[in-house]
Amino acid sequence: VGFTVQILGSGAALPTGQRAPSAQYLQCENRHFLIDCGEGTQMQFRRFNVKLQKIKQIFISHLHGDHFFGLPGLISTMHLLGRTQNLTIYGHPDLEKIIRGMLEVGGHKMTFEIQFVALKYDSPTLIFEDKVLEIWSFPLKHRIPTCGFMFREKPKEFQLDGEAVKEAGLLIEHFHRLKKGEDIELENGKKLNHQDFTFPPKPALSYAYCSDTKYFEDLANVVSNVDLLYHEATFTEAMLERAKTTFHSTAKQAAEIALQSKTKMLILGHFSSRYDDARLHLEEAKSIFTNSVAAEDGMLFDLRKMFS
Amino acid sequence: VGFTVQILGSGAALPTGQRAPSAQYLQCENRHFLIDCGEGTQMQFRRFNVKLQKIKQIFISHLHGDHFFGLPGLISTMHLLGRTQNLTIYGHPDLEKIIRGMLEVGGHKMTFEIQFVALKYDSPTLIFEDKVLEIWSFPLKHRIPTCGFMFREKPKEFQLDGEAVKEAGLLIEHFHRLKKGEDIELENGKKLNHQDFTFPPKPALSYAYCSDTKYFEDLANVVSNVDLLYHEATFTEAMLERAKTTFHSTAKQAAEIALQSKTKMLILGHFSSRYDDARLHLEEAKSIFTNSVAAEDGMLFDLRKMFS
Repeated sequence: VGFTVQILGSGAALPTGQRAPSAQYLQCENRHFLIDCGEGTQMQFRRFNVKLQKIKQIFISHLHGDHFFGLPGLISTMHLLGRTQNLTIYGHPDLEKIIRGMLEVGGHKMTFEIQFVALKYDSPTLIFEDKVLEIWSFPLKHRIPTCGFMFREKPKEFQLDGEAVKEAGLLIEHFHRLKKGEDIELENGKKLNHQDFTFPPKPALSYAYCSDTKYFEDLANVVSNVDLLYHEATFTEAMLERAKTTFHSTAKQAAEIALQSKTKMLILGHFSSRYDDARLHLEEAKSIFTNSVAAEDGMLFDLRKMFS
Repeated sequence: VGFTVQILGSGAALPTGQRAPSAQYLQCENRHFLIDCGEGTQMQFRRFNVKLQKIKQIFISHLHGDHFFGLPGLISTMHLLGRTQNLTIYGHPDLEKIIRGMLEVGGHKMTFEIQFVALKYDSPTLIFEDKVLEIWSFPLKHRIPTCGFMFREKPKEFQLDGEAVKEAGLLIEHFHRLKKGEDIELENGKKLNHQDFTFPPKPALSYAYCSDTKYFEDLANVVSNVDLLYHEATFTEAMLERAKTTFHSTAKQAAEIALQSKTKMLILGHFSSRYDDARLHLEEAKSIFTNSVAAEDGMLFDLRKMFS
């Protein structure tokens, strides 16, 4: 019943000994998601002891290699391990042909179905919804069509106060309405206030993933009020010009989006391999937005613990 | 001026924490080759401190993912590091379309040219030749078209005895003939035996790579008398039936090929991830062919030192 984000790869285009290319593993109430899948992501799953067969949906932000070259290997391994459960992959319309091509030359008859869903790049789009959460894609500004992703829990139900409902002799039929925050009128005319029989709902949490993108102010509105925000910080401000020409962001720009979005916490990542570590990025971001963290491969963020 | 083979990946289809998928780095007299390129090969280059830009030719045995899924990432990294030197890739005719497709969606204008050369699967074929060595492909027997590769140095020249030629006052024009093992007649009619002015040539060495394949006796003739033989040993003899149905070999079968080929040393590899280590494989092979070694990622074989 948690909501966790684990960094599988915090590096940029060139992998280093310390940082694999982009990949993040999300778990929300027994739903398991993968965002981006750079080369070696399946090895990161093993390294951090994450069960790759649990993944049901994969979200690919864009078709630069450091965000999807691990997909054929991950899918092959799922197949070789005998997976039968379907897999859904959200990505650019060109992705399906490429990935199917890579798999088909191997001559395997896949043991499971893969469904590809084409992303849209013009405006925020609801791409998945169930009773627990909504998943949105939203356009970023990079050299090729790129989407960020936002995971928003739906409002949660009030939690029954077991002792109170037992003492009042309430029935199962009442529970459903109390959980929705409705007051109850008993058959004898007695009115019951739901607040006397419930605890407040746990907060509905949210996470947004923004990689890769140049700085643009409106992004802060799109990810407004997410609890946890991941934003790429390929460069530090000293390389602002390079960030502009490559359509990437500096740590300072990431922190400005965090500040304007009113997020509670910023994760920086996608660090260029030219930096030995992310100390400068972190310093720069913290000067604008205090609650900043520099991603390292393997880091786990437990939103329920941090923001409830 | 060496001839070395380094194991970059000794695993089979499923990578493990200990074994990356297939890849080997060959270096022969300043020529740099890569055989197979499983996912994560570029990370193995970094891990073992091998300079990936030196690779000029890549040989892909077949189109199962554990032998080529690392190719797009390796090529992208070569590009991002500013490579200008051409690259030649030998593989199945379908490989070109797939790899170019993976690279083109990223929208990069590559900084260097890639030439694809289609392998033939019916008989041993000379696919490259220069003054130092010949490279041959030869058909293996796997579920899809598969080639092994053989690297054979050409006969080397006699080595001049510097003191002897100086003492006799010989000229550069004589050196060339002496190195070829020719005797010389001077203008004054004096006959000189080349053996008095040279040391014997260093031996011409050879290496053969056989992965993946089921056992077939004729393979020993194809790789006859190579100094060093790599042969896949996915299974041990206890899983002979599984080896047959998947078109793989057991360690015993690999050793039988080694014995029949009269190679000097056998490297076993491509171990199934179901084995914790390769002790059983090695024991099994050694009972038939004593000079057997089980590959581990990073192992380096220096043929010049071992066989000269």
